[in-house]
Amino acid sequence: MSFAVLQEKINAKKNPTVMGLDPKLEYVPGYITDEVIKKFGRTKKAAGEAIFALNKGLIDSCFDLVAAVKPQSAYYEMYGLDGLEALYRTVEYAKSKDLYVILDGKRNDIDETAKAYSAAYLGETDIFGETQKILDADCLTVNAYLGIDGIRPFLENCEKFNKSIFILVKTSNKSSGDFQDIVVDGEPFYEKIAGKILEWGSAAHLGAVIGATYPKQLEDLRKLMPETFFLVPGFGAQGGAADDVKPAFDKDGGGVIVNSSRAIMRAWMKTNDGENFGKYAREEVVCMRNAINKALGEYYK
Amino acid sequence: MSFAVLQEKINAKKNPTVMGLDPKLEYVPGYITDEVIKKFGRTKKAAGEAIFALNKGLIDSCFDLVAAVKPQSAYYEMYGLDGLEALYRTVEYAKSKDLYVILDGKRNDIDETAKAYSAAYLGETDIFGETQKILDADCLTVNAYLGIDGIRPFLENCEKFNKSIFILVKTSNKSSGDFQDIVVDGEPFYEKIAGKILEWGSAAHLGAVIGATYPKQLEDLRKLMPETFFLVPGFGAQGGAADDVKPAFDKDGGGVIVNSSRAIMRAWMKTNDGENFGKYAREEVVCMRNAINKALGEYYK
Repeated sequence: MSFAVLQEKINAKKNPTVMGLDPKLEYVPGYITDEVIKKFGRTKKAAGEAIFALNKGLIDSCFDLVAAVKPQSAYYEMYGLDGLEALYRTVEYAKSKDLYVILDGKRNDIDETAKAYSAAYLGETDIFGETQKILDADCLTVNAYLGIDGIRPFLENCEKFNKSIFILVKTSNKSSGDFQDIVVDGEPFYEKIAGKILEWGSAAHLGAVIGATYPKQLEDLRKLMPETFFLVPGFGAQGGAADDVKPAFDKDGGGVIVNSSRAIMRAWMKTNDGENFGKYAREEVVCMRNAINKALGEYYK
Repeated sequence: MSFAVLQEKINAKKNPTVMGLDPKLEYVPGYITDEVIKKFGRTKKAAGEAIFALNKGLIDSCFDLVAAVKPQSAYYEMYGLDGLEALYRTVEYAKSKDLYVILDGKRNDIDETAKAYSAAYLGETDIFGETQKILDADCLTVNAYLGIDGIRPFLENCEKFNKSIFILVKTSNKSSGDFQDIVVDGEPFYEKIAGKILEWGSAAHLGAVIGATYPKQLEDLRKLMPETFFLVPGFGAQGGAADDVKPAFDKDGGGVIVNSSRAIMRAWMKTNDGENFGKYAREEVVCMRNAINKALGEYYK
């Protein structure tokens, strides 16, 4: 769905955050692990069941608080087909709870191939003459290194099916400057990508990824892209804090969704109380929401 | 496996080409389509069976001629879990025929997440205390926009498990210049990536993707990277020809694998003879091999 729908969900919950679902088996509480191993052995099937149970518990505990979830494809792919089945089940379950689903896949390729990715995650695939939805996320993260003809197939499905994409601009990791900060005509390279985002499509569908770990850049990019929706990862475990993300918000106090994954998923691990992992995740979500809303002060409604 | 292994396979078959496996249902001959629909209906299950049957036929017809296959992940992802199962079966089958398997996924992410992708495709995953191989390709394509900490996890598994990766440098598509050709300090941006490839790792494991559609850039990059292995897509359907790829080869006539996908997979479609799709694919492979070897003349052994 377009960013207008995401903003509505954020406003309704008074919470501009997204719960990242990056499951690893080490985050799964012991009672779930015991259960799946008993049933399926130490297999990939058991791993898939375990990470789905973890995700389901997190969604059940937090769906009334957060606007969106962001499963990161890599963490499912690393458990093979069973992991991917858990991804499909997670997306379906999150949508049944009316959550906005951002699939974090950072897909990228030439035009013909980008069409296939776009069909998989935003559009539909022709199956022997009948079109079918495949994963059907609301939104996908995309890498723009191949230029507009690798992006157009995503934009086409965004418009056709009212979906959205976030293009990587300035990522949250330490070495993001290796290429992104290279100076071109007096400005960092990532601003070239920001410029193309403004040129390529409507802010209703086309957003930008900018890390919470780079607050100065968040501020500069907000000035450059006053109406663009920002996905801001790097909050929590990666080091971004509430004050850091404040400059990302637009003049109406919207246009941003801040992601935290590990801090929420691992919240229970500070205790020995795995049975209540959902409760600890919920506390972390509330804590993050309050911290951001406090930092935003009066201008966030 | 490292590029030394790939070069051995190329030398043994006197053929520096890789068969791209980018299956779409429209490339599947009617007799296979009829069979799978009869068995499974117009379902994703039938689609997965159809594309595996197509791939298996292509591999059976060409495995003695080509050094490698390159399945493009997007074309499997767009058929959902059944498509992904076909990808897993294809990789396994190709390896059973002693082919070098390059998974074209163009994966990229921050360090923690790159570890998960690397585990999925080059390394292994911890499943409740037991490590297991997941897809286990020989090689993966990767996008370096996030800098070294998104690449390091792949390099680590390359060294540990004797695998390889190709990093996108100058891609074959029309709009690849949008960002890749931006001039920085008098040189195109893609040369910055080329420079980092030389700095980051050994040419035994770390290669570059450079499109056949840009012969001048192939020539320049070969000078800049005399020992780096090149994956050269864009031959055939995208317009690259034998003379175009000639400048990519190193001084010993090696260091290159040229990809063609659509021209091989769709070769039978110029006829009505779907029953013999393998024969037409084989003819196309021979034609491509001979054209490249002819263009290379005396210096390719």
